Formats: sequence, structure tokens, C-alpha cells
Amino acid sequence: MLIDGKAIAEQIHAETKAEVGKLAARKVQPGLALVRVGEDPASVVYVGAKGKACERLGIHSQNFILPEATSQPELLALIDTLNKSPRFHGILVQSPLPKQINEELIFQTVSPAKDVDGFHPINVGKLLMGETDGFWPCTPAGIQQLLIRSGVQIEGSHVVVVGRSNIVGKPVAAILMQKAKHADATVTVCHSRTRNLPEVTRTADILVAAMGRPKAITADMVRDGAVVIDVGVNRIPDASRPKGERLVGDVDFDAVKEKAAKITPVPGGVGPMTIAMLLHNTVQACRQQTAR
Amino acid sequence: MLIDGKAIAEQIHAETKAEVGKLAARKVQPGLALVRVGEDPASVVYVGAKGKACERLGIHSQNFILPEATSQPELLALIDTLNKSPRFHGILVQSPLPKQINEELIFQTVSPAKDVDGFHPINVGKLLMGETDGFWPCTPAGIQQLLIRSGVQIEGSHVVVVGRSNIVGKPVAAILMQKAKHADATVTVCHSRTRNLPEVTRTADILVAAMGRPKAITADMVRDGAVVIDVGVNRIPDASRPKGERLVGDVDFDAVKEKAAKITPVPGGVGPMTIAMLLHNTVQACRQQTAR
Repeated sequence: MLIDGKAIAEQIHAETKAEVGKLAARKVQPGLALVRVGEDPASVVYVGAKGKACERLGIHSQNFILPEATSQPELLALIDTLNKSPRFHGILVQSPLPKQINEELIFQTVSPAKDVDGFHPINVGKLLMGETDGFWPCTPAGIQQLLIRSGVQIEGSHVVVVGRSNIVGKPVAAILMQKAKHADATVTVCHSRTRNLPEVTRTADILVAAMGRPKAITADMVRDGAVVIDVGVNRIPDASRPKGERLVGDVDFDAVKEKAAKITPVPGGVGPMTIAMLLHNTVQACRQQTAR
Repeated sequence: MLIDGKAIAEQIHAETKAEVGKLAARKVQPGLALVRVGEDPASVVYVGAKGKACERLGIHSQNFILPEATSQPELLALIDTLNKSPRFHGILVQSPLPKQINEELIFQTVSPAKDVDGFHPINVGKLLMGETDGFWPCTPAGIQQLLIRSGVQIEGSHVVVVGRSNIVGKPVAAILMQKAKHADATVTVCHSRTRNLPEVTRTADILVAAMGRPKAITADMVRDGAVVIDVGVNRIPDASRPKGERLVGDVDFDAVKEKAAKITPVPGGVGPMTIAMLLHNTVQACRQQTAR
């Protein structure tokens, strides 16, 4: 009943590692450039975790850490160099970027062929059009894998996505509505302007909570037997914890788990999948760029 | 209660013509290249209508008619020439293309800056991401204009789109779900795999029928007071007509009009909007390419 994101991410890591082994047999090693600007604490943690995961799987990674005051032309110049470098098949620019830098422009500058985050508009467009030769953003692709690998029937289901961000809500809707295996769902996208949200969420066979509001999905909003995917990562005060806070999702887990057929925990649900799909994409990029 | 697509298209034509006049004041005339391959009868009609509409509005247009047997490299070479030509700010390649030509590749070859059809993946990606500097596909943009200009409140409404094509269903869903004025709707995308379709369509405040099946939306599928947009263009046998056939939409108009608050007819509803938005996009392309 609990969807174990850690265990599923490990399955994918094992598959990715096997692919890395096949590439090694022809003297190719995937390379991922990790670009971070400034010292945002969460970004330091995320980039560190991505580097470690690469190491564990035999993927070459290198950190490019620029100071907070980096100008946009300086960052563009670095991306240009990385776009041309044969040592890196994937480029990840950690968000958020400092205010003086136009994030939209940066994501458009990363070569679409190395855009393992799936944030370039050309990859987003291919995703919506159902073309299969682009990169999918990691968190939405990870959500689909969680569903597939925990035996959830997606085809014909009603998926309700709450939240319409560019990194989760809109792309996960786009993935699951396609005419394709492990998709083919009826998809509803809800958000802050949705009228009578509980009525809509109660029609979901699969509910994806991605609005970034702690415990906002309460038990009365979930149908008995629904599958619930919680994408939220919220820190709330908790005096009983050493750090004075703890991590909760967008779902009121303790209450909703009594109704849901399957549910992801936070942490240990969607979170681990994002890195797993990033490394999967990096190996795919390497295969495409070194195809003979 | 009838949404008059012809009249609304004329309003937009008048606005576009005024923009053409402003450009003329600085000695600039928008140019649209109309590319057709082969003699598909519908394509002959469509390209002809687009050329005439250009003429009426003072937009320069030129037909590039290639034989059915044109090879893909030949068509690519023409598009390359048109991409570079300062005389054409917009390029339209009429679909469908003959079998020997990969349509997906052709649409990706048209310069995104001249892609007035809004079919290039980079423009589709910008659309889904809510970026406003790309081109929107004409039929979905026209549907939004029909709603706006007939006084339909889109914000907070539940829009149900039936059909998930790349030219209508998916992009109209993407337009109407954005956090933006005249959007901000809760959007559901339905299709051939949707379970209990009538139950879903009955929840629609605004129902967009775009599945390409004559009269498939029956009265029992529509809620009293819903707004119904019929994108279907189907020819059905009708012995009483001179041509032995007539045009019907995807909606059973005679029955549904009794329940709908507003409804588009076929013909004369969505159809005229597509050309109106094409010319609007062409003038926008011209302004962007000649901005000083």
C-alpha cells in the first residue's frame, strides 16, 4: 500500500548502471556537468546528492560552482563551453538562479541534446506532441515510473493533477494524457483558481498533489481506493525534532493513507525518483551522442 | 446564444488590417509564404482561402506549389530559402504532406520565428510553459478568442476538451490551463480511452469537441447552460444536397443547442477563426522581425 520510492529508484539505478557498463565496454563513459550559481543551501544539498549518485553508478560528473554575483554573460559563456565539450553528455543548471540571471534564457541556451533536465522548450514541446526523441523532465517521468512499477493501471484512469508548475504539474499531465502505453489517462489539471477542488479531487483514480502547500490534500478530498502521489516537499516547524522542523508533503498523509489504495510517503516517495530519472536521461544523452 | 465565428473573425481581421496599416506607414508589408505539395482537394481550397484573406488585408502572400512527387530534400531546400528570405515573415506548410515526406521533420525545419502555424516544438513548448513570446497554433488560439469575444468567463470554469490532437486538443488545453487572463480554467482532456465519457462531459462549463466524429456529442452529454465549442468538420452523405453530402460538426447541433447557453455552428463557428489567427500571427511575426 505504501509506494516505496527509494526501492523503485534503486531498481532504476541498477538498470542505469547496467547501461553504463555496456557503454564502458565500448570505452564510453557518460558525463554530467553540474552547474550551481551561489550557495543556496538546498541547491548545495541537491547538487551534492546528484554528484554522489553519479559516482555510485560510474557516471563522470563535475561541479561548476560559480559565485552568487556571476553575471548572465558569464553563465552563458560557461554553458556554451559545456554545450561544445565532448566530455559532458548532460548539463544540469541547478535552479533557482540569482536574480540578475534570466532562468528562462539559461534553460533555452543549454543544447536540447544535453538538456537532461527536460526544461528546454523544444523538449517540452516534443513531450506535449507525443514525440519520443526528446528528454522528459525528471520528476514527472519519475511519477510515471512509480505508477508503472507499483502496478497501477494508468490507461483509462482519471488522473487529477493539483498544481500547474512547469517542472511537475503541466508536464506530468502531458505525459499521462498521451496515446501511449502507460499513459492514455483522462487528465484533469487543477490549481488555485479551481472551483470546489474537493469535488474534483474526489473523482480521481490517481491523484497527483503538486501545489506546494503542506498537508493541503485532506482525507475528505480523496476517494476510497485512489492512488495518491505526493510531490510536496514542505518544511514545517516541529519542536520535537533536532532541527526544529520536519518535512511534510502536500498530502495529510496520516489521514489519507486510511483511504488510499496506494500512497507515496514524504520523504522516500517521489524525491528519490528525480535523481534516478536524471541519471537515466544522462545515459540516454550519452548513447545518442555517441551512437555510431 | 449562437457564437458567430464569422462575425468574430471579421473583428479580428479588422484589427489585423489596422496593424497592417501601421506597418505600411513605415514601409513594411507582412509577407506569408504558402507552401503546398500535391493536389489534395481540401488543401487546394484551404491554401486558396488563405491567399485570398491575405490579399483582402493587404498582406503579401505567394504560393509555392510543388508536385506530389517532391522529395523531402527538395522541400527542405525550399523551406531553407524561405527561412532566409526577408520577403516572408511567416511560412505555412499545408498539411497533409505526401507519404515520402516526414511532416514532423518539416515542421521542425521552419524557423521558429516564422512558424505562424505554431507547430514547431519550440513554440509548442513555450505555449505549455506559459511563455508569451512564441506563436500559438491558430485553431486553439481562435477558440480562446471565440470565448473571450462572446463574453464567456474562462477563469475558474471547468473546460472539458474531447480529443487530444496536436493541432487542437492538447494545445487548447495548454492555453486555457495557464495562470493568465482569459485562461485559468480547470481543464480536463478526454479521448477514446476515457471511461464514461458522458459523465465527464456533463461536468463541463465549457465543452470543446475536437475528436473528429460526426455528431458524437449528444444532448445527454451536455449540462444545461454549458458553452459548447464544436471543432469538428465532418462530411456526411445527404441526398438532398447538390453534392450529395453536407458538413456537420462533432456535436449533434440541433439537440444540443436546446441545452447549451452558447454554441458554435458548423460551418461558421471555429472554422473562420483559424485563418483570422493565422493572419494575426503573420503580422506579429512581421512586427518582431522588423522591430527597430
